[in-house]
Amino acid sequence: MKKHNFSAGPCILPQSVLQKSAEAVLNFNNSNLSLIEISHRSKDFVEVMDTARSLALEHLGLQNKGYQALFLQGGASFQFLMAAYNLLEKKAAYLNTGTWSSNAIKEAKFLGEVVEVATSKSDNFNFIPKNYNIPKDADYFHCTSNNTIFGTQIQSFPETEIPMVCDMSSDIFSRQLDFSKFSLIYAGAQKNMGPAGTTLVVIKEDILGKVTRAIPSMLNYKVQIDKESMFNTPAVFPVYVSMLTLQWLKDLGGISAIEKVNNQKADLLYNEIDRNPLFEGYVAKKEDRSKMNATFNLRNEELKATFDDHLKQAGINGLNGHRSVGGYRASMYNALPLESVQVLVDVMQAVEKGA
Amino acid sequence: MKKHNFSAGPCILPQSVLQKSAEAVLNFNNSNLSLIEISHRSKDFVEVMDTARSLALEHLGLQNKGYQALFLQGGASFQFLMAAYNLLEKKAAYLNTGTWSSNAIKEAKFLGEVVEVATSKSDNFNFIPKNYNIPKDADYFHCTSNNTIFGTQIQSFPETEIPMVCDMSSDIFSRQLDFSKFSLIYAGAQKNMGPAGTTLVVIKEDILGKVTRAIPSMLNYKVQIDKESMFNTPAVFPVYVSMLTLQWLKDLGGISAIEKVNNQKADLLYNEIDRNPLFEGYVAKKEDRSKMNATFNLRNEELKATFDDHLKQAGINGLNGHRSVGGYRASMYNALPLESVQVLVDVMQAVEKGA
Repeated sequence: MKKHNFSAGPCILPQSVLQKSAEAVLNFNNSNLSLIEISHRSKDFVEVMDTARSLALEHLGLQNKGYQALFLQGGASFQFLMAAYNLLEKKAAYLNTGTWSSNAIKEAKFLGEVVEVATSKSDNFNFIPKNYNIPKDADYFHCTSNNTIFGTQIQSFPETEIPMVCDMSSDIFSRQLDFSKFSLIYAGAQKNMGPAGTTLVVIKEDILGKVTRAIPSMLNYKVQIDKESMFNTPAVFPVYVSMLTLQWLKDLGGISAIEKVNNQKADLLYNEIDRNPLFEGYVAKKEDRSKMNATFNLRNEELKATFDDHLKQAGINGLNGHRSVGGYRASMYNALPLESVQVLVDVMQAVEKGA
Repeated sequence: MKKHNFSAGPCILPQSVLQKSAEAVLNFNNSNLSLIEISHRSKDFVEVMDTARSLALEHLGLQNKGYQALFLQGGASFQFLMAAYNLLEKKAAYLNTGTWSSNAIKEAKFLGEVVEVATSKSDNFNFIPKNYNIPKDADYFHCTSNNTIFGTQIQSFPETEIPMVCDMSSDIFSRQLDFSKFSLIYAGAQKNMGPAGTTLVVIKEDILGKVTRAIPSMLNYKVQIDKESMFNTPAVFPVYVSMLTLQWLKDLGGISAIEKVNNQKADLLYNEIDRNPLFEGYVAKKEDRSKMNATFNLRNEELKATFDDHLKQAGINGLNGHRSVGGYRASMYNALPLESVQVLVDVMQAVEKGA
């Protein structure tokens, strides 16, 4: 039975990418060797790493603009620490829009003072704060572009005079932005880019070298840049699958092409949430709704068993909301086809008719 | 053409493991979903992580002895730092037997004083120092069990009164040891355990909580233990392949069974290196030779082109020595069949006959 995979992450990847990845596990580049049993310093794998790094910059429009792309281990959670280690000398400014922002703040506090410029915590993060002041003497400003758990997304980024750092784990490569506004972007691969186990870091080199602390090698962006993202053995398979996914996106027409489909998917689902009397959206302000993760509830909890049964019958997977929010969450990452959202909307309408 | 894969790492894995891994990338546990597109908190993946952790302890004979097994990201290089972060209060004692020991020492120095108890550096690490003193007031003693680059291996570990920490990246699960002598063992997966991208950490819980510094979450063993190795999204695919490899090893009869084969492979190759007048071993003392990585040279460099051509014809892959040593290196990890070593020995004898 065909599955419609709305998982919040790790999440759906393009079928063609999965196919090629499985083939490479058995026989990589017709070498009669597996991708995962050859040296990461071999010509074939170095080419994978170089292509992945180059495609990432190309998609973001950041080639030849002083940026470097790295594929590191440790997830975005490791970047919470690494970013602060490399950039936080005295104090940093953080916008707190959810669980991951809060975790980023927690790790940064190991290194220096953190100014929380705004937070929506008292409303369980159901909106994106706006019109906050960013202190000009902070070392950098940090924000989270999309909040997977709460289903909010920053639609307009502030103008900053200090470097802007952004955790884009759950919406990178999903929409066009002026990425040159950011000095550091990081993203765990397991949403729009690949499997868990590698993290993209895109960094403007001129922001480095400004803190006085000694930085251990594995936490030092400069070390990783100098070693072309291979200071030590990288996560070979996750990097390879990420490269394939970035190539798939390029073949589709890049971010601007996928953004159109993402907008169609989000419109289709949010229109149904707003129209259908059985459901209500979680996010307080419509302009803050995420196009990646739509959070919503049944108005009548007694229909839960019926709705869940319909979802199961339709082959819909991964629609449970996160425990901090409850209800449902439909994650509509790049690889999710419009057809899957239509199947979900059909289920919502079927339950409405039966109710 | 069948390949004989002597790669130093990432390295050969069992063919049955590769086959199952490729299948799981397409359809995991008959779910019609890929292993790499489902939640790491799903029942199916939590079971993978739990099984991998439990099998690791079982193989080492450390179940119910106060140890925890973790599968973390970052490689052994990250453990150089993490071990020191969690254990180094004032000073630590390190045995320096090669490149990786030296790197471990470098990272530990970010956290405190390092006493190098002995080193073979002046001889380009071609032997394992013995009869050194370990200061009793050090927080721990650190050593590297096997030196992939130089082809040496510790055959007898010291008795210590302080916790013993060991980087076993390149020989874990290859030979029987009294693993309860160690308080912390870590190993990058990409030799005897799985693909690059995950690192096994086996830690005796009672050594934790003794340093006064605040430890950031991603560097804190206690945090990872409390979250059952899922503080953040783990490297799903590398952990899965590691689990399969640990199961494969169990089906074979465990460490004691594979050790017999490893001894046969090492004996076969070293006997040929010692017998064949064309070759000489790199390691100065035979008792320090590694059973995982045999380093050797051609006595007559003019035969290099001939030997290399024979290797290629025989389908032998990955035999080039590391640039710090030169010559050749035959890595004979658990998954390399005895047959492949025989093919290599046949080539060495064929070149001898032709020379």
